[in-house]
Amino acid sequence: MSGFIGVDWGTSNLRVWRFDEAGAVIGHRSGGKGIAAVTDGDFAGQLAPLIGDWADGATPIILGGMVGSRNGWLEVPYVACPADPAAIGGGAIPVETDLGPAWIVPGLSHLAPTGLHDVMRGEEVQIAGAGVMDGIVALPGTHSKWARLGGGTVLSFRTFMTGELFAVLKVHSLLGRLMVEGPADEAAFLAGVRRSLADPALSGLLFSVRTEGLFGGIPPEGLADYLSGLLIGAEVAQGMEDVSASVTIVATRALAGRYAVAVREAGAGAPAIIDGEAASANGLLALGRRILEND
Amino acid sequence: MSGFIGVDWGTSNLRVWRFDEAGAVIGHRSGGKGIAAVTDGDFAGQLAPLIGDWADGATPIILGGMVGSRNGWLEVPYVACPADPAAIGGGAIPVETDLGPAWIVPGLSHLAPTGLHDVMRGEEVQIAGAGVMDGIVALPGTHSKWARLGGGTVLSFRTFMTGELFAVLKVHSLLGRLMVEGPADEAAFLAGVRRSLADPALSGLLFSVRTEGLFGGIPPEGLADYLSGLLIGAEVAQGMEDVSASVTIVATRALAGRYAVAVREAGAGAPAIIDGEAASANGLLALGRRILEND
Repeated sequence: MSGFIGVDWGTSNLRVWRFDEAGAVIGHRSGGKGIAAVTDGDFAGQLAPLIGDWADGATPIILGGMVGSRNGWLEVPYVACPADPAAIGGGAIPVETDLGPAWIVPGLSHLAPTGLHDVMRGEEVQIAGAGVMDGIVALPGTHSKWARLGGGTVLSFRTFMTGELFAVLKVHSLLGRLMVEGPADEAAFLAGVRRSLADPALSGLLFSVRTEGLFGGIPPEGLADYLSGLLIGAEVAQGMEDVSASVTIVATRALAGRYAVAVREAGAGAPAIIDGEAASANGLLALGRRILEND
Repeated sequence: MSGFIGVDWGTSNLRVWRFDEAGAVIGHRSGGKGIAAVTDGDFAGQLAPLIGDWADGATPIILGGMVGSRNGWLEVPYVACPADPAAIGGGAIPVETDLGPAWIVPGLSHLAPTGLHDVMRGEEVQIAGAGVMDGIVALPGTHSKWARLGGGTVLSFRTFMTGELFAVLKVHSLLGRLMVEGPADEAAFLAGVRRSLADPALSGLLFSVRTEGLFGGIPPEGLADYLSGLLIGAEVAQGMEDVSASVTIVATRALAGRYAVAVREAGAGAPAIIDGEAASANGLLALGRRILEND
C-alpha cells in the first residue's frame, strides 16, 4: 500500500492520517499532546503511540503546524509570500527519528507594503488543502488568517486576533460583567456585525457591549454574541478588501456559519465552506506528495 | 467663609476640596475608599473622616463621579446630550445625610445617529472644569471619552476602551509574552501611533505586536509602548474626526503627553493640556455654584 503518514501537530492538538498510494485516507486518529504540553522535547515519543502500527521505519511522515516552530520539534524557517505549493514543499526540512523518514512543513511569512510582518504556521497546510486557485481563503480562529490566492499561489495574508480578543474581553474586561450565558442570539450577533462592517475601527465600538446591556438594547444572554458580531464584522470588513472576490471559509461548521453571515452582510456572494480537519488532511496529502516527489 | 465642599468620588478614588465664598481652594485631601470598596452602603461614614472638620451640617456638599451610579450612594439618572451646564446642574439630586445639604451631579448619556448609546460619569465634571466653549475635549483613561463642545454645551461624546484594552492584552493575551519591562521607548510608541492613524481598524494591527517582536523590528522593551501607540493612535484617529478642531486633553501630565504626540501626528495643532485633578476641582466649583444658585 505504501503511501505516507500525515501529522497535523498544533499547540494543543495532534491529529494523524494514514494515506495509501492513491491518496485515500485508510486511517485517522487524534489524541496525544499538543506541542505546548511536550515539555521534555521528546516529540518522537509523543507521536509513537499514535502512529506506531503504521510507522515501519520506511513509511514517510509529513508533519505540519506549530511542530515546526521555535517551541516545536525543529524550527523550520518561514517561506516568504508570494509562496506557491512548490516553494512551500521545497521549504520542508527533514527531522531525525526512528519512526521513518520525516519532514516538517514550513510556515509562511508576509511583509506587507505598509511594513507589517505577518506569520502563519499550520494554516498554510489547510490553504493547500482548500484547493483554491484564485480568491480569498479565510481561516477563522484564535488568530484568524485571511489569505489572498492567485494561480494557486499565496500572494499575501493578514492575521486578526478575533478569537483571542473575544476570550480576553469576555473573561477579563468590564464587557463580560453584564453577560449571561444563554442560547445563541442571532439577532444580537447580526447587530454587532452590521455595526462593525459600517465602522471597523473597533476601539470606538466595544464600549457599546456595555451600553447595549445598560439600555436594554440587547438582552444579557445576547451580549456575548453581540461582541462576537462586532469582532467578526471588523475582521470581515478588513479581510474582504474586495467584495467581488470569492471567499472560502475553512473552519468548523458552527464557526464557519457565523463568518458566512458576516461575509454575506458585507455584500459578497455566499462563501464556500470547507471543514478545517478535512482541509488539514487534504493539505498534508498535497504537500506530502510534493515533498516526496522532490526527495 | 461659607462656600462649599466638592467631592470627586470614583470607582477607586475619593478626593475632596473645600471652596471658600470666592471659589478659592482652601483645603484639599484625598484618601478613603473608592465606591467599589464601599460594600456596606455607608457612604456618609466613609466620607465623614475626610471632610468631618469642614462639614458643620450647613455647608453644602457637591458630589460627582461613580458615587451617582447604580453601585454608588444614589443612582442619579443620566442627562442626555446635547447638555449644557444648566442642564447638568439641574439634573443633580439631593441625598440625605447629617453631614450637610448634599447633591450628586448626574452623568451624561448620548445616543449617536448610528444608534449607539454612550455614557459617562465623572468626566462631565472635568469637562465643565476644562472651560472649553467650542472644540474637542479628550479625557484619556481606562475608558477614554472624547467629547465635542459647541457654545459650552456637550454636543456628543464617544468612549474608547483604550486603557482597559492595553491592560488585558498585556496581561492576558499572547501579545504580552514577548514584552520585557524597560524605559519608555518613544520611537516604538510613535511607530504604533503612525500605523493605527493610517488604519484605525485595530484588529488587523494587533498581531504586529508579536511579529515586530519576532522579526526584531521593535526591541522587547519597546513592545508595550508599541501596543500603547497602536491603541492611542486608533483612538485619536476616531476621536478627532475633524483635524481642524481644537483639542484639549484632560489627564495626568505623562498620559496627556502621549496623547499630545498622537494628536500632532494626526495633523492637528498642539493640544491644550489640563491636569485631571485641577479639572475635577474646577468642574465641581462651576457645577456646585450652579446647583446652589438654583436651590
